[in-house]
Amino acid sequence: MVDYKPDAPHSPHLDSMFQALSDPTRRAMLQALAGQPRTVGELAAPFEISLAGASKHIQVLERAGLIHREVQGRVHTCHLDARPLHAGAEWIRHYERFWNRKLDALETLLRTADDKTGKRAAPPAQNKRKKK
Amino acid sequence: MVDYKPDAPHSPHLDSMFQALSDPTRRAMLQALAGQPRTVGELAAPFEISLAGASKHIQVLERAGLIHREVQGRVHTCHLDARPLHAGAEWIRHYERFWNRKLDALETLLRTADDKTGKRAAPPAQNKRKKK
Repeated sequence: MVDYKPDAPHSPHLDSMFQALSDPTRRAMLQALAGQPRTVGELAAPFEISLAGASKHIQVLERAGLIHREVQGRVHTCHLDARPLHAGAEWIRHYERFWNRKLDALETLLRTADDKTGKRAAPPAQNKRKKK
Repeated sequence: MVDYKPDAPHSPHLDSMFQALSDPTRRAMLQALAGQPRTVGELAAPFEISLAGASKHIQVLERAGLIHREVQGRVHTCHLDARPLHAGAEWIRHYERFWNRKLDALETLLRTADDKTGKRAAPPAQNKRKKK
């Protein structure tokens, strides 16, 4: 058995950030906040959930550091803070070469199939990704 | 109250992918598989968890489409499939301008503070990020 040492340090920020993104309501809330700051009521409005349900989602986003709340009397306004997403993007980007490699393999397979049937390969219009 | 329509279609793939990434053990397993395919036993070995516990994590990664399992008799070998991460990277990338904007605001604040104290601003060595 080949052993390996996991070299990823424990990153509670990544845990809570990816957890926050794993729900479609929370992703839609972030999308709404990208346009402008919104009150809790405004964030809850488009969803068929209670204000309490919406508040729970907002708390998950707050704990992940993705929004901060500005309190003025009874009005709580939520603001997007996208900075924690940067670490998530960096983490995922590390794997970019692996999905490109899969696409390269598919491309080779299609070209081989084309060669065998004597057809010309289609122009690589969908193939403008950056190679690493 | 300003209403908005959430324009993110429901994406169960994004749900399960971000959910899979929200755990440090699962992220370490993906990192291990980026080096080479590994058996379930090899994936479980570095962690202080039971083989059953490791299997649950592997199932979450499988459901997210991030690994596929090759079965040869009793030996189950796991392979990385990074393609679902592409959609996650695209989703997060949409917010890149927001974390850059925050950094710009911080930079302006620091420059203003420097101007007031009569100090020269530090050279922008850490400022090679792409502006959008």
